[in-house]
Amino acid sequence: MKSYSELTRNELLNLKAELDRQFEEIKAQGLSLDMSRGKPARAQLDLSMGMMDVLHGDADLSCETGVDCRNYGVIDGIPEAKRLLGAMSEVEPENIIIYGNSSLNVMFDSIARSMTHGVMGYTPWCKLDKVKFLCPVPGYDRHFKITEFFGIEMINVPMTPEGPDMDMVEELVQSDEAIKGIWCVPKYSNPQGYTYSQETCERFARLKPAAPDFRIYWDNAYSIHHLYDYHQDYLHEILEECREVGNPDIVYKFTSTSKVSFPGSGIAAVAASQANLDDFRKYMRIQTIGHDKLNQLRHVRFFKDLDGLHEHMRKHAAIIRPKFEMVENTLDKELTGLGIGEWTKPFGGYFISFDSMDGCAKRIVGLAKEAGVVMTHAGATFPYGKDPRDRNIRIAPTFPTLDELEKAVNVFVVCVKKASVEKLLRKKDA
Amino acid sequence: MKSYSELTRNELLNLKAELDRQFEEIKAQGLSLDMSRGKPARAQLDLSMGMMDVLHGDADLSCETGVDCRNYGVIDGIPEAKRLLGAMSEVEPENIIIYGNSSLNVMFDSIARSMTHGVMGYTPWCKLDKVKFLCPVPGYDRHFKITEFFGIEMINVPMTPEGPDMDMVEELVQSDEAIKGIWCVPKYSNPQGYTYSQETCERFARLKPAAPDFRIYWDNAYSIHHLYDYHQDYLHEILEECREVGNPDIVYKFTSTSKVSFPGSGIAAVAASQANLDDFRKYMRIQTIGHDKLNQLRHVRFFKDLDGLHEHMRKHAAIIRPKFEMVENTLDKELTGLGIGEWTKPFGGYFISFDSMDGCAKRIVGLAKEAGVVMTHAGATFPYGKDPRDRNIRIAPTFPTLDELEKAVNVFVVCVKKASVEKLLRKKDA
Repeated sequence: MKSYSELTRNELLNLKAELDRQFEEIKAQGLSLDMSRGKPARAQLDLSMGMMDVLHGDADLSCETGVDCRNYGVIDGIPEAKRLLGAMSEVEPENIIIYGNSSLNVMFDSIARSMTHGVMGYTPWCKLDKVKFLCPVPGYDRHFKITEFFGIEMINVPMTPEGPDMDMVEELVQSDEAIKGIWCVPKYSNPQGYTYSQETCERFARLKPAAPDFRIYWDNAYSIHHLYDYHQDYLHEILEECREVGNPDIVYKFTSTSKVSFPGSGIAAVAASQANLDDFRKYMRIQTIGHDKLNQLRHVRFFKDLDGLHEHMRKHAAIIRPKFEMVENTLDKELTGLGIGEWTKPFGGYFISFDSMDGCAKRIVGLAKEAGVVMTHAGATFPYGKDPRDRNIRIAPTFPTLDELEKAVNVFVVCVKKASVEKLLRKKDA
Repeated sequence: MKSYSELTRNELLNLKAELDRQFEEIKAQGLSLDMSRGKPARAQLDLSMGMMDVLHGDADLSCETGVDCRNYGVIDGIPEAKRLLGAMSEVEPENIIIYGNSSLNVMFDSIARSMTHGVMGYTPWCKLDKVKFLCPVPGYDRHFKITEFFGIEMINVPMTPEGPDMDMVEELVQSDEAIKGIWCVPKYSNPQGYTYSQETCERFARLKPAAPDFRIYWDNAYSIHHLYDYHQDYLHEILEECREVGNPDIVYKFTSTSKVSFPGSGIAAVAASQANLDDFRKYMRIQTIGHDKLNQLRHVRFFKDLDGLHEHMRKHAAIIRPKFEMVENTLDKELTGLGIGEWTKPFGGYFISFDSMDGCAKRIVGLAKEAGVVMTHAGATFPYGKDPRDRNIRIAPTFPTLDELEKAVNVFVVCVKKASVEKLLRKKDA
């Protein structure tokens, strides 16, 4: 295939005419497809239906310490749930607090708590003139929305396949006391599917921030969400690493079963040092009488242990792996060598990250929408919704059926080509 | 019976000797009883076990609009849950947001939101020098703990059987812009079991606070928690009243099924004006992707409608009514005419409020503890844990079995008598 940039003006014009024709044909089909949402498909949810039966009307609903899970009590999680999510987070049960149905909610509350009460006794952020967060980009839009909501200034840090640019992270956190945190999705990152290298993790653990209340928000959302049995990314465990290098309090590790059991009806957890967990608990004890212990029990009785979780995730993988592969194969076949796009090929997680030529992402997403295919809003993967190069698009292959997805990705490919040709023609005319 | 205050010093000394002997006898029994906690008994929790079966592995888990409740989506509650909790709250479904498992958590978050983001566009409270709350006393300790946690100054307002002293409430909120809210448990109040009169509700709706961001925190925790079929308190519906008098935004109504289904595994809701709910939603959309819809569905399929809820609450009443009556009868029999205590006889809710002679509550609770009976900490029903007259004790009859409760209340009675005699003797000696 010849790269688009090597085409003459006439060749581009001919190509554009052909792509316009294809595009009109697609539009005429009146499609209504969605590649925007990191949601499990129905078939994945069906995998957890057995969970509806483990707590039946005749079941003993006491946890292993004999506490009746139907009543008030046990603020930070029943022991067996701490063990299960501890295993999933690769930490000891005593380093875990179990929360409600959403780890995003726990992250939000952690920022809210830092605003009003400060971190482990330091000045509440609402009393400071300026608070800043580092945001590896592209990244997870819901993280950025939280920090934006609290008026926290966000600084972009470029992502690499090994994680955030650590030279930049180190320099910034060492030099600016206003920088209080960094958002990380360290494994199968949203949207690239990158996993931080061991060196990156070690450098994170060794950060010497100017702010004593700086925290790494380590959102390990896809810790066991592999696509393959053998090709799997391995993430170095950071909490132990931090403890070993004398930096035990620098990280909050978040996890949840949202994309293991049921999104919105899972259980979430935080792993951190005792000092941090005590700080969390102080807030929690006033905020609530306790989280839903029956749902904790339901999860433990269904999954049993880490092996049970892994076995379950293999069934998820069997459903979504063909979707990822189909998207990747189609992009390979249709776009390789054209010089108009690059994309990731993750071994896990929920997304593929696509980078178009600079200045084309908005147009591509707009064209796709016109053709009946909803993509994640261009820019969504950057703070304030602003992608400085207007090139990143997040592809979410999981929710549609394979058949729908195939249609959608073929539409997407035409939109990428069309927007790229338009861009190159504008360049030639300029 | 002769009032203790009419007894001579010698009569008191003889009485004290007899009570000391009784107290030692009780201590020798090595009791371990608990009248401190507003928790349902096991038998009450058993009433809801059918809820464990309504969502089984073969059930269709879509809500009535066809949304799959197992997946992300529907931020503010499925329609049937809004209808159910709307009926329970006596408001239209469109005036309801459904939350997670705890209304206390929603109240906490409402204060946190007001601190960092302000109420409907007004200055965030964290930017103000002083924020104050009115606290009808005695009241619910968890309310007071929230406002204390956020550094909000609390002002005691005396309760009457018709509700808070409204002359005082009106005068304070009209004259002080720093007063941003008032905590209310308007029906079967914690701890007295009082229900606000219609006049009180009408005066609340007509408040003209100096602060435009003043809100009534109307925690209707016991709205359907009657003890009797015929003797029931009726609470005037405040949201409609506020709308009618042109004060639609002044109230947040909270409710939950914590003491209807399972404490900690119920569902919570807020009823308020559209403007207030929009303010809540703005925060919520950033805070979470959504609450547990499966638990919403579980509640709706089990209770079906308001009739179903009422029928269920009659079964609760059948279990706890004998407990309340036994406590009341014992107090009547043992203390009437002695002038050493007064107590409420509520038609619903979870508590009986006991007022000893001034300066005796701590001693009574201490004696009870010594004798093996745990009561709610004296002072807990007041802001900062400080009962200025040291006389209020909250009795929670629901959790123990009838047999345990009978033992506990008889111990309590001896402790009341003993503490009172000691107090009167000190007075005579002074």
